[in-house]
Amino acid sequence: MRLSLTQENLSRALASVGRVVSTRASLPVLANVLLATDGNRLRLSATNLEIGINYWIGSKVEEQGSLTVPARLFAEFVSSLPHGNIELHGLDSVLTVKSPHYESKINGISAEEFPLIPTLTSDPALTLDAVIFRDALAQVVVAASADEARPVLAGVYMYIEDESLFIVATDSYRLAEKRIELPQGAPKEFSVLVPARTMQELVKLLGDAEGDVEVYVDENQVMFRIADVEVVSRLIEGQFPPYRRIIPESAETSFDIATAELARITKVASLFARESAGSIRLEIKSEGEVSVVSNDSEVGGNKSSAECEVNGEDGEISLNARYLTDALAAVKSPMVTVAISGKLSPCVISPAGENATDDYLHIVMPLRT
Amino acid sequence: MRLSLTQENLSRALASVGRVVSTRASLPVLANVLLATDGNRLRLSATNLEIGINYWIGSKVEEQGSLTVPARLFAEFVSSLPHGNIELHGLDSVLTVKSPHYESKINGISAEEFPLIPTLTSDPALTLDAVIFRDALAQVVVAASADEARPVLAGVYMYIEDESLFIVATDSYRLAEKRIELPQGAPKEFSVLVPARTMQELVKLLGDAEGDVEVYVDENQVMFRIADVEVVSRLIEGQFPPYRRIIPESAETSFDIATAELARITKVASLFARESAGSIRLEIKSEGEVSVVSNDSEVGGNKSSAECEVNGEDGEISLNARYLTDALAAVKSPMVTVAISGKLSPCVISPAGENATDDYLHIVMPLRT
Repeated sequence: MRLSLTQENLSRALASVGRVVSTRASLPVLANVLLATDGNRLRLSATNLEIGINYWIGSKVEEQGSLTVPARLFAEFVSSLPHGNIELHGLDSVLTVKSPHYESKINGISAEEFPLIPTLTSDPALTLDAVIFRDALAQVVVAASADEARPVLAGVYMYIEDESLFIVATDSYRLAEKRIELPQGAPKEFSVLVPARTMQELVKLLGDAEGDVEVYVDENQVMFRIADVEVVSRLIEGQFPPYRRIIPESAETSFDIATAELARITKVASLFARESAGSIRLEIKSEGEVSVVSNDSEVGGNKSSAECEVNGEDGEISLNARYLTDALAAVKSPMVTVAISGKLSPCVISPAGENATDDYLHIVMPLRT
Repeated sequence: MRLSLTQENLSRALASVGRVVSTRASLPVLANVLLATDGNRLRLSATNLEIGINYWIGSKVEEQGSLTVPARLFAEFVSSLPHGNIELHGLDSVLTVKSPHYESKINGISAEEFPLIPTLTSDPALTLDAVIFRDALAQVVVAASADEARPVLAGVYMYIEDESLFIVATDSYRLAEKRIELPQGAPKEFSVLVPARTMQELVKLLGDAEGDVEVYVDENQVMFRIADVEVVSRLIEGQFPPYRRIIPESAETSFDIATAELARITKVASLFARESAGSIRLEIKSEGEVSVVSNDSEVGGNKSSAECEVNGEDGEISLNARYLTDALAAVKSPMVTVAISGKLSPCVISPAGENATDDYLHIVMPLRT
């Protein structure tokens, strides 16, 4: 293998594919990145056996070939080089890297030992705007479970209904749902359950990408393609819970407040909620005040209040401070509506204010105290 | 105790004194900050039994008194409050904190259990400009040992000679010396050996302080006073090594180079020096090039070069990459001179270029390879 490319392109590609490299892999080659020429491009590939990435960059290829090198070392090395041209020369499993004033030899592993990352060749099932899709995923993925004990809850569920794409996640303590309206001609039927970890990586990989994301699906896998990057992931088997039935249809008490203000008094109260595993109490007064109250038998107690616009009667509910904080961060709206119906019904957080959309809701289940 | 003060002042003070609070203290009261009225000021005190800080802030004191509260919780709480007035009310060992919309009770410990932080009442032994002193300490403290096995090497030595203050530290693998010219009338005799950890905290505490630092010394302790803050520390007993004899008086080979350029090629080479515990080799060619060479039997090897201005003959020396990197960061000069005399003599790094001063040198001992 012999080729040349720019430091800028190679460094950017390595930073992206390096995200899925597992440093504690049982299989040493999984700590490596595959470099393989593909016509007049270089393909970089990395996988942790759950997610795989193929990333193509333009190169001046003089001699076809492939090998793998330690992903982290190679990425650190390339990112330290000055901008400009870099020559790569692979011989057996040693990669020689040259740029003016720099020359390195990196010991690698034969490309034959690297697992195949499949590419899905069917037509795309769906095409989405990269920015809209990234922002939607970021608003939802926070509610997925980090615990693999119930695999369906460690996933993000995407499905089409009524000409909209719904993106949903729940860990059973909270739930986030985002709706994206689809253009005419979009498919009527679509549903996949994708590991939340894949979606977290996808949010980062999409970064400031522009243009379209194409979604490809087969029986066991999903592939997202953005320009010259493909992300392939397994799908989760199983049925996502029938979540719609837990969304309350009305509220006895609701209030509108600046998101940052509620986040601030929640943060203050949470300092005094460590003993109680993050339990805080919202007290809403119909004359226009919300208080966040916490008590910690060891350290003390706190009551933080803010003015707000209340609809309905007085109300109170106990919530986990972190879940409320996460929800307020995920809403991405300067104003929020918080709606409750007594101490035992779910709390619904949604965007409020003049330019608010009705395409997002975040539910936090109450704590029984 | 009953008083009021501004959130801004209290938060800043807590951030400073909080630095020396030990979270894993065997004595619970050491995790607390002492609040004690002192006339029309509030004194905040914290100590880890090696370093103590007293920090006074102006307050409207209505009722004298004192108590201690958990330092970290109190600092986090106060920093989360909005700017403006805060009321503190201590009753027994419970502190009530009120500001508009916020009210907290924090369980504390009686002030009687808090260790006394002494204040040195003699005349100051020395007065220094805060900015000059902070920058000097930052350039030197990096060379002190983190290992307490040889206590004198875990200290920063300050002494006066020839109307200059010398500040020195060495861990026996490297050494940094800074000289500050003193004004007329400064004392002729002065020497203290201060724990490096104290000096690291002092660098941070001095932050963007302006004005003078007064240094007070008694038999066992040193105190630094900056405006309304006093830092008290134990002194290290013992004799600092006669370090001057290891400073080479001349060099067979030296080169001038942009500090950032040498730092960059050292960083690149160090990626390939992990197996060899950071060993890199400088190769200097009298025609005007320096190369940093590293070899790692496992991952590969690297040679990174840069042009430079060489005086003297060809030369080479093996150094620890981290020590060289630390030295280049500590020099604080856009250009450096690196001087060596064969493979076995110490390497001397000092400021170079048009505006360079001759008041700083950093020595790195060679590795025998």
